Amino acid sequence: MAEASARRRGRGGGGAARRAERTAVRIDTAKYIERNIPNFEVLNEEALEIIEYNAETILEEVGVNFVDNPAALERWRNAGADVDGERVRIPRGLARQLIKTAPSQFTQHARNPEKSVVIGGRNMVLAPVYGPPFVRDAQGGRRYATMDDFNKFVKLAYMSKWLHHSGGTVCEPTDIPVNKRHLDMLMAHMTLSDKPFMGSVTDPSRAKDSVEMCEILFGKEFVQNNTVMTSLTNINSPMTFDDVMMGSLEVYAKNNQACIVSPFIVGGAMAPVSVAGTLTQVLAEVLAGIAYSQIIRPGAPVIFGAFVTSIDMNSGAPTFGTPEAAHITYGAGQLARRLNLPYRSAGSFCGSKLPDAQAAYETANSLNMGLMSGVNFMLHSCGWLEGGLVADFEKFVMDADQLGVLHGLAKGVAYDENAQAMGAIREVGPGGHYLGCEHTQANFKEAFWKTEVLDYKPFETWQDEGSRDTRQLASARVEYLLANYQQPQMDPATKEALEAYIADKKASMPDAFT
Amino acid sequence: MAEASARRRGRGGGGAARRAERTAVRIDTAKYIERNIPNFEVLNEEALEIIEYNAETILEEVGVNFVDNPAALERWRNAGADVDGERVRIPRGLARQLIKTAPSQFTQHARNPEKSVVIGGRNMVLAPVYGPPFVRDAQGGRRYATMDDFNKFVKLAYMSKWLHHSGGTVCEPTDIPVNKRHLDMLMAHMTLSDKPFMGSVTDPSRAKDSVEMCEILFGKEFVQNNTVMTSLTNINSPMTFDDVMMGSLEVYAKNNQACIVSPFIVGGAMAPVSVAGTLTQVLAEVLAGIAYSQIIRPGAPVIFGAFVTSIDMNSGAPTFGTPEAAHITYGAGQLARRLNLPYRSAGSFCGSKLPDAQAAYETANSLNMGLMSGVNFMLHSCGWLEGGLVADFEKFVMDADQLGVLHGLAKGVAYDENAQAMGAIREVGPGGHYLGCEHTQANFKEAFWKTEVLDYKPFETWQDEGSRDTRQLASARVEYLLANYQQPQMDPATKEALEAYIADKKASMPDAFT
Repeated sequence: MAEASARRRGRGGGGAARRAERTAVRIDTAKYIERNIPNFEVLNEEALEIIEYNAETILEEVGVNFVDNPAALERWRNAGADVDGERVRIPRGLARQLIKTAPSQFTQHARNPEKSVVIGGRNMVLAPVYGPPFVRDAQGGRRYATMDDFNKFVKLAYMSKWLHHSGGTVCEPTDIPVNKRHLDMLMAHMTLSDKPFMGSVTDPSRAKDSVEMCEILFGKEFVQNNTVMTSLTNINSPMTFDDVMMGSLEVYAKNNQACIVSPFIVGGAMAPVSVAGTLTQVLAEVLAGIAYSQIIRPGAPVIFGAFVTSIDMNSGAPTFGTPEAAHITYGAGQLARRLNLPYRSAGSFCGSKLPDAQAAYETANSLNMGLMSGVNFMLHSCGWLEGGLVADFEKFVMDADQLGVLHGLAKGVAYDENAQAMGAIREVGPGGHYLGCEHTQANFKEAFWKTEVLDYKPFETWQDEGSRDTRQLASARVEYLLANYQQPQMDPATKEALEAYIADKKASMPDAFT
Repeated sequence: MAEASARRRGRGGGGAARRAERTAVRIDTAKYIERNIPNFEVLNEEALEIIEYNAETILEEVGVNFVDNPAALERWRNAGADVDGERVRIPRGLARQLIKTAPSQFTQHARNPEKSVVIGGRNMVLAPVYGPPFVRDAQGGRRYATMDDFNKFVKLAYMSKWLHHSGGTVCEPTDIPVNKRHLDMLMAHMTLSDKPFMGSVTDPSRAKDSVEMCEILFGKEFVQNNTVMTSLTNINSPMTFDDVMMGSLEVYAKNNQACIVSPFIVGGAMAPVSVAGTLTQVLAEVLAGIAYSQIIRPGAPVIFGAFVTSIDMNSGAPTFGTPEAAHITYGAGQLARRLNLPYRSAGSFCGSKLPDAQAAYETANSLNMGLMSGVNFMLHSCGWLEGGLVADFEKFVMDADQLGVLHGLAKGVAYDENAQAMGAIREVGPGGHYLGCEHTQANFKEAFWKTEVLDYKPFETWQDEGSRDTRQLASARVEYLLANYQQPQMDPATKEALEAYIADKKASMPDAFT
């Protein structure tokens, strides 16, 4: 505070002082998580085999629908499926055979090579919330999201140490025409951040635009030989693959770009009310979707996705952070690993309307299960509020701070000679204390995870500073980060080429708001 | 609301209506958790063996202090330890040999036999917060705790479905003299609840009073042959056993009553700054403490305790819900299981001053690790605030609600024919929905955990009802529960005998407030 007011009082040197302060803001990005702890496995071998057997039974006997997509039906027929109208019945074992070409892990390149991520294996890559039409902050309340909000979230994600990925539709910029939104969103990810990002899936033509913009950013040849986008293609559960999502998947797979093939399930509504039944359906759906991606292009990178919530049977509302959601997340992780596929699930899920205790309980439950279940790509890892209807600014930085806890947990426990600390125990002895001892001095800086949001001050200090709750602390953090944001550098020619592409595209069609 | 005002308007039948309403309040207590999920193990075999070897080295070469307790030193000498002043060095393997008589699990009896608990094995018993000198609620703010507050917490614990245990010093009743407090606290647990409880440890004479009051409640012979109290005897880490705690442990062990033998460690202050070093010290301390209990009475029931927090190296404040605290909790669980001892750790830990998002993140992290680490007895499982300085009324019911999530998680995943739900999947098929199907109707009531605090309503309904945050919802829940509390029945002669005992005791000594 004293420093700030000194700066405000000073004249002339203010600009330099502010620049110096900005330079001092850390924008480190942690490496994606490489787990050094076991996965938590809730299903035994017998349960896994039953679920796997039943999923094949569904594919064979019930089948899945590929809707409004005659080319897909033709491809399935050629691959050996039994196609009847839009219903595709897949003989036992065929899907499993087809997905063998899918890579068990892949690199998604960022324009800053230091921020490229490897998705799969023991890794976990964290990306922010996706899809909310509303935003909320303490000052402005709940309101429709705009492009200005979108840009702010991209900046916050860029500045978060624990986010490895810039995400996709961090909120819906409702002030931009629906048919042009994807261009501005991609431009924000490409220019305001240097982390990896997602492409558009709201229309196959927009997926194509996404690929073309990446060709400008990364070079055409690079894009054909490397994965530079990971995009979210949902399945309309139960067992329905629509032409928009599958059309987008076709574009991405053909261009060697990654897709998350992800059932979207509110348990009890889009899947059976039981955990085992839901897992069976999830597996059947993912097998069909990923098999289809490999028919399009064998070897195309894909992720086994599972977005599954429980439900409040009174209101029909999806519920989060519940035991049933955890069971499904753990179980789906086991199923994904048995298929040797990267796994996407979990996130900062909550049903609360405010970034309050309910939001935090539900979110912490969901984040913990995400880490423990072996998730490789965690979309929605921060900022999610109100069942995904709202992207909340305070919750974004609160959750992002908690992602540091996951990084620490994943490191596991060192037990080398320094970690054993026998010298310290001998030195201090019964009744002593460790604060001053040599081992503590040598290790304390790296010993403990540090928050950048939460309050650990003595009660009296906290009271003197205004008795702020977490949301107020987070508001201050949001303001601080946005005030100190610095845009990563970019070749001006690339930027101009992207701008020209977008201008052309926008001029080529009238605005559409549906 | 309509119903309530109808009752208020009605005359004559009001009393009966109110009684009927009270009777309708559920005061079910769930059975203690019997885990049907694996434990999470963070340490590998090599790390475990190193820690176990090093712990014996500490006991042999550094030793532990038994302070102001000549009889304990004599006992240790007779048991084969090397005693030098107050320092007790325990030859490698001796402590491990001595603890072999400690039971791997034991039953703690409640006066209502349906609420007796089995502590150990795959079970988890949940007890409320212990020890805070302050209480807080939304209306009254933060203030010194009184006996009235204490009684309210005992009532709330009695009415919580997910608490199996009434606990001990749920808050410090600072309006009662220190030397008489334990009598009123025990009386509250014995009469306002019928769940199992803890005895006093603040002086050996008070431990004796606790045993005598239990002899009145349960009968003298029953107490000698059965465990009716589980009490908390802390170790003053590093490696110091004081005469008050050990004196209390001596009373309890002699009378076959259970003690939690628990290091109290703020990592980096009372133990090395590293996880492996802290675990080594914890193991050495618990080995010494439990060995001592078995010298007092072979077969006395005991629990391997570990209260360990991380630390904010800037302020020295203990920190909660951190990765380091989780690593220690997981690791200590493994060490306890290898000794075949029940394990106590975790709780609703947080450093926050308010029951806000920080409190909930930290608490959820701590509760989850408690379940996954195999804890058998979880003290502090609800109501803990501000590093344990405050027992918070709203957080008590918020946390208690989350304990239901742990119950659900621990159940594991069913995969019988009903759970497989293949009939439902066939019936609904691609593009259908499950809400109306037979399987959903037959299973939905038991399918999902239900909150009694959190909000799942549509945004508009929530807004119309006042846009309440979690704390406000919890305030209403506290008020509702206390308004509907009904005291469990007790034999009047027993109650009179307890009252007479307390009156005699109180008359026998002047008040003391230190």
